Amino acid sequence: MTTDALLVAESDDEWPDLVIDLLGQRMSVVRINTSEKTPSDMDCSSVKILVGGPSNLVPWISVCPQLQWIQSTWAGVDALAGHIPAGVVVTPLKNVFGQSMSEFVLGWLLALERRVLDRAQASVWDDTPELGVFGKTMGILGTGSIGSAVAKSAQHFGIRCRGLNSDGRPVDGFEACFKAGDHRFFDDLDFVVSVLPKTTHTENAIDQEALNRLSPGSIVINIGRGNAIDDDALLTALRNGAVGAAVLDVFREEPLPKSHLYWQQENVYITSHTSAPTLERFVAQAMATNLERFIAGQDLLGTFDASKGY
Amino acid sequence: MTTDALLVAESDDEWPDLVIDLLGQRMSVVRINTSEKTPSDMDCSSVKILVGGPSNLVPWISVCPQLQWIQSTWAGVDALAGHIPAGVVVTPLKNVFGQSMSEFVLGWLLALERRVLDRAQASVWDDTPELGVFGKTMGILGTGSIGSAVAKSAQHFGIRCRGLNSDGRPVDGFEACFKAGDHRFFDDLDFVVSVLPKTTHTENAIDQEALNRLSPGSIVINIGRGNAIDDDALLTALRNGAVGAAVLDVFREEPLPKSHLYWQQENVYITSHTSAPTLERFVAQAMATNLERFIAGQDLLGTFDASKGY
Repeated sequence: MTTDALLVAESDDEWPDLVIDLLGQRMSVVRINTSEKTPSDMDCSSVKILVGGPSNLVPWISVCPQLQWIQSTWAGVDALAGHIPAGVVVTPLKNVFGQSMSEFVLGWLLALERRVLDRAQASVWDDTPELGVFGKTMGILGTGSIGSAVAKSAQHFGIRCRGLNSDGRPVDGFEACFKAGDHRFFDDLDFVVSVLPKTTHTENAIDQEALNRLSPGSIVINIGRGNAIDDDALLTALRNGAVGAAVLDVFREEPLPKSHLYWQQENVYITSHTSAPTLERFVAQAMATNLERFIAGQDLLGTFDASKGY
Repeated sequence: MTTDALLVAESDDEWPDLVIDLLGQRMSVVRINTSEKTPSDMDCSSVKILVGGPSNLVPWISVCPQLQWIQSTWAGVDALAGHIPAGVVVTPLKNVFGQSMSEFVLGWLLALERRVLDRAQASVWDDTPELGVFGKTMGILGTGSIGSAVAKSAQHFGIRCRGLNSDGRPVDGFEACFKAGDHRFFDDLDFVVSVLPKTTHTENAIDQEALNRLSPGSIVINIGRGNAIDDDALLTALRNGAVGAAVLDVFREEPLPKSHLYWQQENVYITSHTSAPTLERFVAQAMATNLERFIAGQDLLGTFDASKGY
């Protein structure tokens, strides 16, 4: 029996069951667990579709000469850089993280602005009121599906949103958009949220000059990739009060090394890359539309563009 | 310079600063303090907008021949009765607690469900994911403007909402409404939020039977009045796990006495009646939408109808 689709999973992954439910009626599907099999154990000569986490997929790509489609089970596919053969399309798992990312961003913002962290430890009555978030301004680096979802949630609470993207094009849901590198984007922001992927263009997008332009005591949240922040500049800004708090989910090195100064810095909250959990149940759902298109020989939707890096 | 908007304030009022922030970019705004100036001291010939407390505004209305809009800083505008010229609209301050209450409820819920409280104190990498709030069910006791605002915010995050009100009437934004006293309202709720006022009918609305019907580990939030909760029953439910956490903003006695068991009970968060801060700061945000409509020449929203009295 030939194998049309190969699911490269961790042994405790649950997404393959749902993907097998979806694909198994249309083609032959094989699940392998990375701990049990290597590419030399398998005949992959007929595999057209690979599904899995980007770094797990890398060793399998070169043994699949018929490969046409890589479905990533993650939004970020930078681990595949340099490994994508010509003619193979990659579809990152996207449009499914908005809910989780929005919960994370608004949860942390409201917790900080409404003093949830302080009040959780209250031992005496303290009826000092909080000002809340209405009318404050958020700048979102990245105006794709995740950035737009975060903007929509922020606006629900009366937060004004501006966006930063590669060319400054206007995007629905953002009052204004700025081109990457235009530091005016950062002027007087109360909140900065990066959802940027890791590319050469996003390196240190939040640098010292950016941080100096923020409203004093601003909150910086990074749920994209660690390379978007100049860590030294952020630590300085936290120490001098230009930034009041930073919620950091992603880092240049993960897990964040124990010796990193972020662990010691007051008002830095480290959330261990949990802003979007692997929403396993979404993998099959995300593939459903493209499966029909794939079988019909149509171009797939939401494909990764290596030249842009997303 | 002509004056477009006149703010009639008490000398210690803080709302004018925020209103000036809002209006000052669009028109000329003057603040006067009632203790310092009278209508005969001012040229009001160009004033189109008056903002202030109803009784303070009365003497100014007749000296503003161009007047079009009176924004009251109070909900009740009965002091203006008989003083409103034909063609002048009055907007009372109303429906303004929803924002603050929604921030509070979603801030606490997301903080608890996304483990903000734990993660804020993390000293090691912990990438255990959280499930989030999508698809969970909230029951809201009280379906008026505050309850409806909370429901809208909850639904934004994919939380399903049911309501409890005096007669079980259906209300927009709630999947189902139950009549007060019908304990089926509480069945399998993940979140319970009370916004009930204090009346004889709301006493112990959340009693032992109600708590026993909740989903195990549920979260109870009270931002209405303290009499809605049977405190002994809640303490029992917290100890036996029927309730996982309680966020209590209001109590039968405030400040909550130091000897009260709530101060000692794990997973009880006491927020000292701060879910909605003082009204003043809402004046500007209440005006924000209507300002755009005013400038665009559109009819204002939420205007006072003298024939109805509200």
